[in-house]
Amino acid sequence: MPRRRRSDSAASSTPARSVAYRKLVNPFPAFTPYSDAFVAHIHGAAMDILAGQGLRLWLPEARDLLHAHGARIEGEMVFLSAKLVEQAIKTAPCAFTLRGASERYDVPIALGTLCFHPGSGTPNATDALRGRRPGSQADLEELLHLTEHFDVLHTLPPIVEAQDISPALRHLHMMEAMLRISGKIPSIYGRGTAQALDCFEMLRRFRGMTQESFAAQPSSYCVINTNSPRQIDQPMAQALIDFARAGQALIITPFTLIGAMAPITVPGALTLSHAEALAAITIAQLASPGAPLMYGTFTSNVHMKSGAPAFGTPEHVRATALAGQLARHIGLPWRSAAGSASTSNDAQGASETLMGTWGALMAGATTVLHAAGWLEGGLAISYEKLITDVEALNMIAELCQPLSEDESELGLEAILEVQPGGHFFETPHTMARYRDAFYPPIVHDYANFGTWQERGGKDAAARATKIWQDILANPTPPQGSKQSRKELTDFIQKRAEEGGALPLS
Amino acid sequence: MPRRRRSDSAASSTPARSVAYRKLVNPFPAFTPYSDAFVAHIHGAAMDILAGQGLRLWLPEARDLLHAHGARIEGEMVFLSAKLVEQAIKTAPCAFTLRGASERYDVPIALGTLCFHPGSGTPNATDALRGRRPGSQADLEELLHLTEHFDVLHTLPPIVEAQDISPALRHLHMMEAMLRISGKIPSIYGRGTAQALDCFEMLRRFRGMTQESFAAQPSSYCVINTNSPRQIDQPMAQALIDFARAGQALIITPFTLIGAMAPITVPGALTLSHAEALAAITIAQLASPGAPLMYGTFTSNVHMKSGAPAFGTPEHVRATALAGQLARHIGLPWRSAAGSASTSNDAQGASETLMGTWGALMAGATTVLHAAGWLEGGLAISYEKLITDVEALNMIAELCQPLSEDESELGLEAILEVQPGGHFFETPHTMARYRDAFYPPIVHDYANFGTWQERGGKDAAARATKIWQDILANPTPPQGSKQSRKELTDFIQKRAEEGGALPLS
Repeated sequence: MPRRRRSDSAASSTPARSVAYRKLVNPFPAFTPYSDAFVAHIHGAAMDILAGQGLRLWLPEARDLLHAHGARIEGEMVFLSAKLVEQAIKTAPCAFTLRGASERYDVPIALGTLCFHPGSGTPNATDALRGRRPGSQADLEELLHLTEHFDVLHTLPPIVEAQDISPALRHLHMMEAMLRISGKIPSIYGRGTAQALDCFEMLRRFRGMTQESFAAQPSSYCVINTNSPRQIDQPMAQALIDFARAGQALIITPFTLIGAMAPITVPGALTLSHAEALAAITIAQLASPGAPLMYGTFTSNVHMKSGAPAFGTPEHVRATALAGQLARHIGLPWRSAAGSASTSNDAQGASETLMGTWGALMAGATTVLHAAGWLEGGLAISYEKLITDVEALNMIAELCQPLSEDESELGLEAILEVQPGGHFFETPHTMARYRDAFYPPIVHDYANFGTWQERGGKDAAARATKIWQDILANPTPPQGSKQSRKELTDFIQKRAEEGGALPLS
Repeated sequence: MPRRRRSDSAASSTPARSVAYRKLVNPFPAFTPYSDAFVAHIHGAAMDILAGQGLRLWLPEARDLLHAHGARIEGEMVFLSAKLVEQAIKTAPCAFTLRGASERYDVPIALGTLCFHPGSGTPNATDALRGRRPGSQADLEELLHLTEHFDVLHTLPPIVEAQDISPALRHLHMMEAMLRISGKIPSIYGRGTAQALDCFEMLRRFRGMTQESFAAQPSSYCVINTNSPRQIDQPMAQALIDFARAGQALIITPFTLIGAMAPITVPGALTLSHAEALAAITIAQLASPGAPLMYGTFTSNVHMKSGAPAFGTPEHVRATALAGQLARHIGLPWRSAAGSASTSNDAQGASETLMGTWGALMAGATTVLHAAGWLEGGLAISYEKLITDVEALNMIAELCQPLSEDESELGLEAILEVQPGGHFFETPHTMARYRDAFYPPIVHDYANFGTWQERGGKDAAARATKIWQDILANPTPPQGSKQSRKELTDFIQKRAEEGGALPLS
């Protein structure tokens, strides 16, 4: 997808435009609002914070790991020398591939590549037919189907929380749904070793990997949020160790709201965020040198009158740009985020998500989380907004396609042929190309006002409803064999009988 | 505007953030999808078209002008040598200032500066209270008030066509309204010498300029559209001559739809558009060497299934990027355009206008037309969309503000002060800055879902209605003195008695 008309070779000598939305390379130049010297200074300040002020690390195992490598420990506080952090930055790989069910699902990760995730981690789901409700397993499965449908969405985040499944079993059902519905790369929550091991086993078995091949290349990822300021809690620290040792990817992202959990200035918030990210990178690299991971930040501002989080703001864009500068300073692929604080799929929602997305693109982000469907600052995922945001992502993916500089691109014979005031509709140059000339929209409508009114006068949000309904009515066939799918459910049944695994807190 | 809380100097030693949305410098790096060699090749091909195929120039005076400078003329066709065009590019100024009623309204124009125009030239106006209707003088005046209100809108285009005023008098009433309501730079339609001279006189008198000072620096501008392919009609050619000789700015913009009036490829459409722009630049520079003007293009694609124009598409963004490369190749400031084909102020509308705006920003456009309020591909201007688009433009203007790299930006004392897991709300670093820390939104709402519902559950488009109503209820005081305003209406009365001036066609 998108479903594209194929060029009829009998009617045209020009090959159909190939559409490759899966493995994107970011064509946009980097927006660098701060000087290289200032970026280096922020990096140095973050290193000083880690060495001098330290951070609170709740997990004894993680403290022991740091201690074994010479870090100073005082109670729950750890202090990381510049040498230790610099060594970790060196051992972190600058490129790796997130492996999907088959090659076409693989996502290369490096500075310069680009991938998009739908919105994730929301407690609620909303759509025009059924309204806003607490997320369920059924919602998650529908949203996974929508994610599988669109090439431009590259991974399977925990889009919505399946609140109708008990916490001890939720990870099992979530992973079963991801694997059955899509060949894309599943995320796994960092909620304790037991849950992670369950998910690793399901993934390894279903996609037919040995222990060795599973460990050799990441087939899943875990998003790590620090507890700013200067804290890493037990589940997060445990996940840093577990995923690193399992060779699964870590996306390390302090989430800070400027002026709340971080200083009120963008450079101040990024100094803190950078320090926390470096600490987490150090833990992961000490647990397993060479472990695949991404640097990251998700920093936006609060609305000063209400204290509410805001997204797609100038401060968000500027923080993203500076995070990109810091990522390039340390030479690691990195994760950014779009998103919206709007309560509905309106002009605000579209503008915020697109502003955040362009901010991420111009900051050279490797991967953009919450790029589709994320409303209310992450409290709800909208089926309709997922569709309207995918339209924008598709267009951006079009801009990532390689361009021809062939002489025929100039259309000089057509310009010669068409007289002043004429039109180009029927020139051979047009006829050979028109089938695949332009991006075909999925929800944008170009009808004039009268026609649009006759068709019911539905805005983009309303039109999106039928689109997701159609996709769900004709879902992509399930992944794997009937036997392998049964093995998944058997595994869940066995684990359920054993009591599942409660999240670590 | 925007109305910003001022920092209380008693409460803070940090000066209030100065907000300068009027004279913007584009901070974004240029997106250059095509190689320099390919851009030079397109420029050469356009020069070849002008010399070999020529274009139809309907106005005898313009043909005579070209003939006097050695151009070959065959009937209505003119053929321009490379030498003639290159000389014109040389005499065109690379920088000038559009002069407003006072210095604060002035807009510097050069490669690297940035200004925004609200949508323009629409036959219809629409708002949530009164619905969609043919544009009137009253609508125009209201929309001019909204434009005056927002610093980030820099000029006064003919936002909506005042269809209730007879064509012979419309230019007079339009100019009177622009001058009375706003100190920004008025546009004047290229609809014949008589109308232009009327408008020049009103502008010169009202803003107190001598003939000499009026001619020395542009105080108005005219948008020139060619009649693609390869035609310049009588009113446009006349305006090229009249405005150049009056020292008023020309914005030269072939408007082409890829695959309709231009080849179906982006480089092909731009080859044609570039040739037409160069021809118009040549006419203006021969009429008055050194005449201030902007190069430009407005190129988007049609929707292939329906033939309808589309905006904010990948092809639109790519064409904009290539136009920017061509503008820099010839070294002239240039005009681009955003805009939307949507019929309502919905997610599509926001996404299209913002996609076009970001395309223009990354293409290094000097001036972006149709950046707010433009719906239906230019068939309607929406009061509400003007507000929601201005929100995005304000945010972009924030990103244009100069940044501090002062040590205090890092907030190190705050980071030192706040313990792990604490918050930054009450640190002196925050307290000194919170009043002016963040961009204050005008229509974006960060309330949570429950609060938003209690307040009536209005989306951004619905909330925008009250905002434009409030602005119109408290309009900016009129420009000039009572006497100078009376002189304007006296002038109109005199010209009306003389029969006004019908548009040239």
